[in-house]
Amino acid sequence: MAAIVRLLADDALGAEREVVSDPPAEGYFTAFEKISADPRNLLAVAEDAQGAVVGALQMTFIPGLSNQGAELALVAAVRVESRLRGQGLGETMMRWAMDEARARGCRNIELFTHASRLDAQRFYERLGFAKSHAGMRRPL
Amino acid sequence: MAAIVRLLADDALGAEREVVSDPPAEGYFTAFEKISADPRNLLAVAEDAQGAVVGALQMTFIPGLSNQGAELALVAAVRVESRLRGQGLGETMMRWAMDEARARGCRNIELFTHASRLDAQRFYERLGFAKSHAGMRRPL
Repeated sequence: MAAIVRLLADDALGAEREVVSDPPAEGYFTAFEKISADPRNLLAVAEDAQGAVVGALQMTFIPGLSNQGAELALVAAVRVESRLRGQGLGETMMRWAMDEARARGCRNIELFTHASRLDAQRFYERLGFAKSHAGMRRPL
Repeated sequence: MAAIVRLLADDALGAEREVVSDPPAEGYFTAFEKISADPRNLLAVAEDAQGAVVGALQMTFIPGLSNQGAELALVAAVRVESRLRGQGLGETMMRWAMDEARARGCRNIELFTHASRLDAQRFYERLGFAKSHAGMRRPL
């Protein structure tokens, strides 16, 4: 889990939002336990040949009435170790996520990506995603 | 549940996606049962003085490591009966959803709205939402 937090912080936006400490802050442990306990949420990691975590993503499988009751797969917190970017690992991870979503019977896969992440948007468009929606957020 | 499906179909995009029949198609029942059984998903409806369903929305409470382990509230399928639009019901429903998200300890509330729904985007902006993200979707 500490390795995933490190990946989340290894990013222009994440660096401002996350706290990297050893051991990680209590909030990360609580969240990790909630995710682990929930069959509709999963964290997946990519490891290198030495077993080090070099990529991570979260999936949420959301039941809904829309689209004739189709389940939706939401992908979030997609991160690749900075020194390994541009080598196809992100694509491998996303293709795995799409297969996983199909295997669960989802008809669509969705994600929010910050408006400033233009490279990420091009990456997702190459994988068949379209910027069909506005992703709106409000702090509470 | 049939009343919610009717609301989902009472919409330019929904009309193409949903099937309104009596009784509703099996997929809606299956989805409704999944939502009802899941403590992280809820369907809320607004009723008029006669008890008729005139508004609906879905909320999903998503645990995540990002933002120091903060839980995220996702709102979807927000619908108001067409003859009642523009009278403040949608705002009442969304303020309820924000209160609910705060009560559960969420730090942000997010939603996807189709790029073509410009009125909806202005409505959400009035409520404090920002188009901070691209909402990307891929059919599977």
